[in-house]
Amino acid sequence: MSEPGPLSAVKFKSVRLLLNKKYRLKEGRCLIEGRRFVSEALRAGATVEMVMVTVDFAAQNEGKDLIGVARLAGAEIRTINPSQLPVLSDTVTAQGVVAVVRLPGAALEDLPVRGPGPSLVIALDGVSDPGNVGTIIRTGAWFGADGILLGAGCAELSSPKVLRSTMGAVFHVPVVAGADLPDAVRRLKRDGFRIIAAAAGGVDTFAGATKSLMIFGSEAHGVSAELVSMADARYWIPKYGAGESLNVSVAAGVALSRFRAGQG
Amino acid sequence: MSEPGPLSAVKFKSVRLLLNKKYRLKEGRCLIEGRRFVSEALRAGATVEMVMVTVDFAAQNEGKDLIGVARLAGAEIRTINPSQLPVLSDTVTAQGVVAVVRLPGAALEDLPVRGPGPSLVIALDGVSDPGNVGTIIRTGAWFGADGILLGAGCAELSSPKVLRSTMGAVFHVPVVAGADLPDAVRRLKRDGFRIIAAAAGGVDTFAGATKSLMIFGSEAHGVSAELVSMADARYWIPKYGAGESLNVSVAAGVALSRFRAGQG
Repeated sequence: MSEPGPLSAVKFKSVRLLLNKKYRLKEGRCLIEGRRFVSEALRAGATVEMVMVTVDFAAQNEGKDLIGVARLAGAEIRTINPSQLPVLSDTVTAQGVVAVVRLPGAALEDLPVRGPGPSLVIALDGVSDPGNVGTIIRTGAWFGADGILLGAGCAELSSPKVLRSTMGAVFHVPVVAGADLPDAVRRLKRDGFRIIAAAAGGVDTFAGATKSLMIFGSEAHGVSAELVSMADARYWIPKYGAGESLNVSVAAGVALSRFRAGQG
Repeated sequence: MSEPGPLSAVKFKSVRLLLNKKYRLKEGRCLIEGRRFVSEALRAGATVEMVMVTVDFAAQNEGKDLIGVARLAGAEIRTINPSQLPVLSDTVTAQGVVAVVRLPGAALEDLPVRGPGPSLVIALDGVSDPGNVGTIIRTGAWFGADGILLGAGCAELSSPKVLRSTMGAVFHVPVVAGADLPDAVRRLKRDGFRIIAAAAGGVDTFAGATKSLMIFGSEAHGVSAELVSMADARYWIPKYGAGESLNVSVAAGVALSRFRAGQG
């Protein structure tokens, strides 16, 4: 198979523009980096448009394998020099590979929740920390959520830190960015969803429901009063020791685990 | 009450040395920052030696309250100018206050686990990410752990990011830094502890035990083979959806929640 050619200076400049949030959203593309993340995106069937590798990485077995899979998936392969890598990368070590992928993201209408079967959807209200948003997407994928809604005040889905924190799970579960949560709650209620808000004073059990929406808020402010008032139930994790609160992605993991165990 | 005086240039220099890990450990002191964190340290009874505030913060009601509590706790109060604050701070916004506190940390012998009653101890093996170590300390405090052991390869307890991620919980639960985990396992076994390792192939239930040690490993490598072989049981969170793994602090939260619920 032919060796990949170098990325042209003109293309490098256009790829670099994806570091800018406005440009990412306008173009519908984003950058992902690192061996594990790029492999996971390919494996999950994400639209990987271009894979850029250092010559060193391309010469390694791991690099050859990744390039082979990327070629099969229809991606353009280009080499970059080691000094170009950090420019396109958000971390200290991008491990020799960066890729341009179609921005993940779905619309509420696209979520596979209309049928009579069970569904679990997660909504985040004002979760501004990118690491928490990414970790909750990762956790939601693990616990088999059918979709994740990012409401007002959430970190931007296309930001490198959010994407990286998902560890590739963003390509496994539909994420609706910029969701109007009060509107989504009304629509999901019409589809038979039970709405559960994480809020102080709630209980730590889940009534059985074949379709559930679980809403988590920011650590500082919690779920908004409007959304809490629309919920059918409140959930809260009991405190056995000390401290003011749990990290929101830990709380989401605990709630999802309890929810799944309760359905078992 | 008299107004606090300014921090001298000589003292500023010596406080600044605490940004260095070796110096922190040698001195047995560290820096914490932000209103919430400093308040939490005071509330938890940590030894707060000096509180440094900007003149602006000292003039606010919240600042006056915090200074009052700190004075009662025996802390020296000093003002710093706004340009000194970022030098002593690890974050963009230290919110007007930085404090010197005695390094938290305990020895295995000090943990309140000798009696006949129930005990829960957490051990981390090679968890190198400071945010995860801090978040697990926070989560352990919430779920009422009697102690947390940081084994080989863990992020340094005194690092600003670890301390900050605990959200003050580090002052509520004894943390043993630099623990020899195989030795700790042998000693806790002699004290009647059941040893549970988070490891693939494990089950998601807990046999009842009045004394339990739960070991969590790094996301990349898991709990070391030596420690897994010493364990009485393996715990693993079932996957309902997609993805390679859970974030380790999310996994610890889920396990602790399941453990507590199982005891209920």
